Amino acid sequence: MQIPKGLVPMTPSTAEALQAERSKAQFSVAKMNEFIVDEEMRKQLIKVEKVLASEPSTFDVRQVYFMSRTEKMDHALKIGKRLIELMKAGRISADEISVADMILDINGPFGLHRAMFIPTLQNQATLEQQKLFLEPALNYEILGCYAQTEIGHGSNVQGLETTCTYIPETDEFEVHSPSISACKWWIGSLGVTATHAMVMAQLVVGGKRLGPNPVVVPIRSTEDHRPLPGVTVGDLGPKFGFNTMDNGFLLLDHVRVPRINLLQRYITVTREGKVSRPANVDPKVAYGTMVFVRTQIVRNMSQVLAKATTTAIRYAAMRRQFAGKADKPQEAGVESPVLDYGMVQYRLIPLLAQNYAMFATSQAFAAHYAECMAALDQGDFGPLKELHATACGLKRWTSDRAIHGIDTCRHACGGHGFSQFSGLNEFFGNQYPNIIWEGDNYVLSQQTARFLLTQVRMLRQGKRVADNQTTRYLRRHLPGGRLPEQPPACARMPVDQLAQDPDAQLDLLAFRAAAMCAQLADRMQGGQTWNRSLVDMQRLCDAHSDYIVAAYFRRHIRTLPASQEGSQALLEQLDRLSTLLFLYVLEQHPADLLCLPVGQFDSAKVARIGQLLAQLIEDVREQAVPLVDALGVSDMRLNSALARSDGKVYESYLEWAMEDPLNREDTGDQIRREWFNKYYKPVLHAASNKTQARL
Amino acid sequence: MQIPKGLVPMTPSTAEALQAERSKAQFSVAKMNEFIVDEEMRKQLIKVEKVLASEPSTFDVRQVYFMSRTEKMDHALKIGKRLIELMKAGRISADEISVADMILDINGPFGLHRAMFIPTLQNQATLEQQKLFLEPALNYEILGCYAQTEIGHGSNVQGLETTCTYIPETDEFEVHSPSISACKWWIGSLGVTATHAMVMAQLVVGGKRLGPNPVVVPIRSTEDHRPLPGVTVGDLGPKFGFNTMDNGFLLLDHVRVPRINLLQRYITVTREGKVSRPANVDPKVAYGTMVFVRTQIVRNMSQVLAKATTTAIRYAAMRRQFAGKADKPQEAGVESPVLDYGMVQYRLIPLLAQNYAMFATSQAFAAHYAECMAALDQGDFGPLKELHATACGLKRWTSDRAIHGIDTCRHACGGHGFSQFSGLNEFFGNQYPNIIWEGDNYVLSQQTARFLLTQVRMLRQGKRVADNQTTRYLRRHLPGGRLPEQPPACARMPVDQLAQDPDAQLDLLAFRAAAMCAQLADRMQGGQTWNRSLVDMQRLCDAHSDYIVAAYFRRHIRTLPASQEGSQALLEQLDRLSTLLFLYVLEQHPADLLCLPVGQFDSAKVARIGQLLAQLIEDVREQAVPLVDALGVSDMRLNSALARSDGKVYESYLEWAMEDPLNREDTGDQIRREWFNKYYKPVLHAASNKTQARL
Repeated sequence: MQIPKGLVPMTPSTAEALQAERSKAQFSVAKMNEFIVDEEMRKQLIKVEKVLASEPSTFDVRQVYFMSRTEKMDHALKIGKRLIELMKAGRISADEISVADMILDINGPFGLHRAMFIPTLQNQATLEQQKLFLEPALNYEILGCYAQTEIGHGSNVQGLETTCTYIPETDEFEVHSPSISACKWWIGSLGVTATHAMVMAQLVVGGKRLGPNPVVVPIRSTEDHRPLPGVTVGDLGPKFGFNTMDNGFLLLDHVRVPRINLLQRYITVTREGKVSRPANVDPKVAYGTMVFVRTQIVRNMSQVLAKATTTAIRYAAMRRQFAGKADKPQEAGVESPVLDYGMVQYRLIPLLAQNYAMFATSQAFAAHYAECMAALDQGDFGPLKELHATACGLKRWTSDRAIHGIDTCRHACGGHGFSQFSGLNEFFGNQYPNIIWEGDNYVLSQQTARFLLTQVRMLRQGKRVADNQTTRYLRRHLPGGRLPEQPPACARMPVDQLAQDPDAQLDLLAFRAAAMCAQLADRMQGGQTWNRSLVDMQRLCDAHSDYIVAAYFRRHIRTLPASQEGSQALLEQLDRLSTLLFLYVLEQHPADLLCLPVGQFDSAKVARIGQLLAQLIEDVREQAVPLVDALGVSDMRLNSALARSDGKVYESYLEWAMEDPLNREDTGDQIRREWFNKYYKPVLHAASNKTQARL
Repeated sequence: MQIPKGLVPMTPSTAEALQAERSKAQFSVAKMNEFIVDEEMRKQLIKVEKVLASEPSTFDVRQVYFMSRTEKMDHALKIGKRLIELMKAGRISADEISVADMILDINGPFGLHRAMFIPTLQNQATLEQQKLFLEPALNYEILGCYAQTEIGHGSNVQGLETTCTYIPETDEFEVHSPSISACKWWIGSLGVTATHAMVMAQLVVGGKRLGPNPVVVPIRSTEDHRPLPGVTVGDLGPKFGFNTMDNGFLLLDHVRVPRINLLQRYITVTREGKVSRPANVDPKVAYGTMVFVRTQIVRNMSQVLAKATTTAIRYAAMRRQFAGKADKPQEAGVESPVLDYGMVQYRLIPLLAQNYAMFATSQAFAAHYAECMAALDQGDFGPLKELHATACGLKRWTSDRAIHGIDTCRHACGGHGFSQFSGLNEFFGNQYPNIIWEGDNYVLSQQTARFLLTQVRMLRQGKRVADNQTTRYLRRHLPGGRLPEQPPACARMPVDQLAQDPDAQLDLLAFRAAAMCAQLADRMQGGQTWNRSLVDMQRLCDAHSDYIVAAYFRRHIRTLPASQEGSQALLEQLDRLSTLLFLYVLEQHPADLLCLPVGQFDSAKVARIGQLLAQLIEDVREQAVPLVDALGVSDMRLNSALARSDGKVYESYLEWAMEDPLNREDTGDQIRREWFNKYYKPVLHAASNKTQARL
């Protein structure tokens, strides 16, 4: 199928419209990119994209939207195998494989082997066990997965039912699934791939239950990949996204493994069935790993949202609807770009500001994490719990905004957002689990809120609290753990002045979070139960994160070398985005301010906040295309007809549609002929058949 | 693959847990079902489900989650063909085919033929044209689609580029796509199916452009289904949902059709090229049809949300996490159902109240529509524009809440919501376009807001406004179009009293909408542009709808025959849901009240609203399972492992997974063997190969 010749080009073309937006840039896009995206990620992306681009037949992303589940799995396996080869050949590192997964938006079946099986062995296996399991795993001679979640047990790890019972007669453990609700479920890389499962099971020795512990269970032959005796294993079927991963289920029917298979760094069972715990878990390991995983999620969410904002903002700058409706004059008869409409701006521009804040936060948070780990090495445990509580809040804040942001961006593309070729649909499904895993976002908010409430309670009781970024603002705004009678300066300041004063903005966000915490503490002291307080807790958690994100954003902005050429231009953009984000928080939650007991906010102030925000949104809109360009999302990563960096929207959209299997000559002709004979012809000719029958 | 024998059953089992919830019912589920679901829909659902259940091999829904796009299309064609046969055999009516589509959640390729092609011919074709096109269409001897949207032109119909030029030399029209942006796009039933397209094209006669008009263009042979000369047509590829529909694209290269193919009821072009407009469009037709389509959407959205709330609430009542964390005592060691947690309740119970409100609104709105149409027949045009403005608001209100409600319900199912077997993923994608089509929800809000603002402006100018449900509340609360100095009684009332007084609740919602309208009108009179006001307009539109929905909900409640046995029990539930919805609106938008110029709301009142809402949510939770049962969503429609009416959750979930093509013996063994040889073996044995090579 071919596009007819002689079609008149659009004026201005989408490519010209995009170029015009770029020519308005008031700052260096390259310099902004260097500043806002962390150096390691930036360099890895460039390196890995080059490797992937050099093998286009293997790393093809264009066809993925047409594939069935089985074809997607096949595609992911082909890619996964090749990435392992490239790693062994020294072309990319093991870490860079996950960068490749991100670029291709394909989470392949070898992923959990690297992400969970190997790290668990590294952290919890003895040296002897590392020789036995870790070495072949690093060599891909065995393929692993991490089997914790059960079909009836998610967040409650203590409630797991699978047992691992010591059998002294044979010096073995018997691993067993007693019920259907004990069936291991959601386990990545289990459905088709793994030869070994790291099974989290209730350890039972001499009739005593000792809690969940990891045990290595061989489940498939490494010779022919068939399930071993007693093992019922399979793929758990199609999902909303993540369909290149073989999430699986596993039932174990009294499966025996040698005693050595129980990971023994933190618990030991002797030949005689004596249990000992040779080493306590270092708090740095317990908290440090969780926090580290969340720093990675925060970083990933920046990149995830960048793909969505880039797509929506570029396309909104090129797509036109109606002439003369937006406030800006256009040439006669030329329709306005939809990005000129207030409602489109209001949906996209604050998201862009959040995206910049995430990139900055990701860098400042990683730096802060490194500082805390260094302090910990010196025996200073002060910042540890705060870091964990804040990390929970940030994981929630960034993933909520990124995932729902994809949906907003998809919808902002109008109908075309609904096409797979927008790049935002498979992607939405693939990224969606981020709001569920590593702590469901609703459950996580309790971690953050609990920490904040504990600090306030300690302040009220006159107890000493550790010194950290959170207790510093709580102490400042809640002397003795209670709201002051006099409002702080930031709450008395006129809104126009606030909009010019980044320090006052930060302080007001801190005051808001502190006040919400004190108000909730009052209600709970007055008898409001924990269960009744859960809604307030998530609001409190987000208010804390609003402050933390703003603080990290400012902290990262301060690292900009003021003397460097072009810095001033970057600073102007960054200041504007940071103020926009501040005003957006207030505009979205006006009641938080109106209900402050210090009584400094009223409807006039709220209205003024809305006006200042609207003005700032219009200002940032002018630089929106260069600002998303600076996030550095490549065409390979966008994988979208709507957002190509060359601006050729409709041409590529139509060409892509023509590649659909229903349209292609090699496949489509046959499918359509078959359907005509099976379905259309009997319908179309039914009447004449009937007429003939009657004659 | 089989489930191992000897697995211990759960205690209590999920089925027992569901039964226990049902035994708590304080009202007749059957009577509630009769009252809340409109009779026509209820009867159609029962009738059509029986027909579908009688042919399980054709109308199988269980396999659909495993299908590729092409397989889905094939499946939908098989179903579509059979439904046409059943209709011709008199087993179901043409209307009931769309009920079947809803039950099966399959929008098949014959859909637009019925929904758009035939109605357009009925409304806009002359009798001669009806003979020529409508009769064969009704007989399925031709298959049609409605080709309006172009790739570069969505909401702006006047901006369409496709031309239909009269050629007097041959007495034909030439229909032509001048550019890529003129390519017809998104057209349902076009991609593979249609033999004829109803093309909306700019009519050009004697060099004059006369605006968009519909013209019938044959595009594929009815004999062999091949595209006709000059026609480039195809399917536009995979989408986020709706993949059983062949949305297509169409480029016409100077295609000629006879003059009779231009629909001539509202415009006529003679042999000589003289143009006349024989009949003005009846305002009843112009507004009435749009409003009618929206009454259908409101009705559908009730059913759509019911599927989601039923799934999430039933599953949350059976799924257990942690013992002793919710406020309710459980037997020792038994975990709490997640529906007992405050955060799960807060996400699901207000959605249930909204769902009931939608069902009631759907009925009251349809009744109101019928009254207005009757009045119109008597020449009373007073209610017409109001009805249209309100319908726009309701389409937006119901579809926003239903579509985002599916997402909330999916997430509330935890990880399992992400599995296709939850029933909420394909479904989310398939229903998503409801927020975009028939007026994108963001654009629609302008229609409602414009109407409200116009009424207020007229009141300010002392002009007479038509009498209808909207102007009645505007006049009451805005004497002379302005806010009164004295607050109305409803705003002065203590919150506890408000919660007992449905009339005062309605009046406060009306006052809130009126106040927001007056405030926006002030800002616009003060110079705020239309484009700057778009964000406020959508809030105003929703505030109006909050009132209208509450009013329709109450109106429908009042139709409950008080004397009938069991009515009192229904009334208690309905009153509680209606009050819950009222409190939820206030709790979600506290600043609307805090910023009222009458100054009757403060933080204490806001806090009290939150407490009353929390209490009511806990109360309604106790009846939540019977309340969703009363919505009458069948297992066939749910098509979910998590929400079966018999409560067998995990058994059916696991069985379903075992049917996955990757697991089945007939297909899975072969696929896995192939993957082992192609991918796993080379990876697993790479090291030994290398060692061998070295030796």
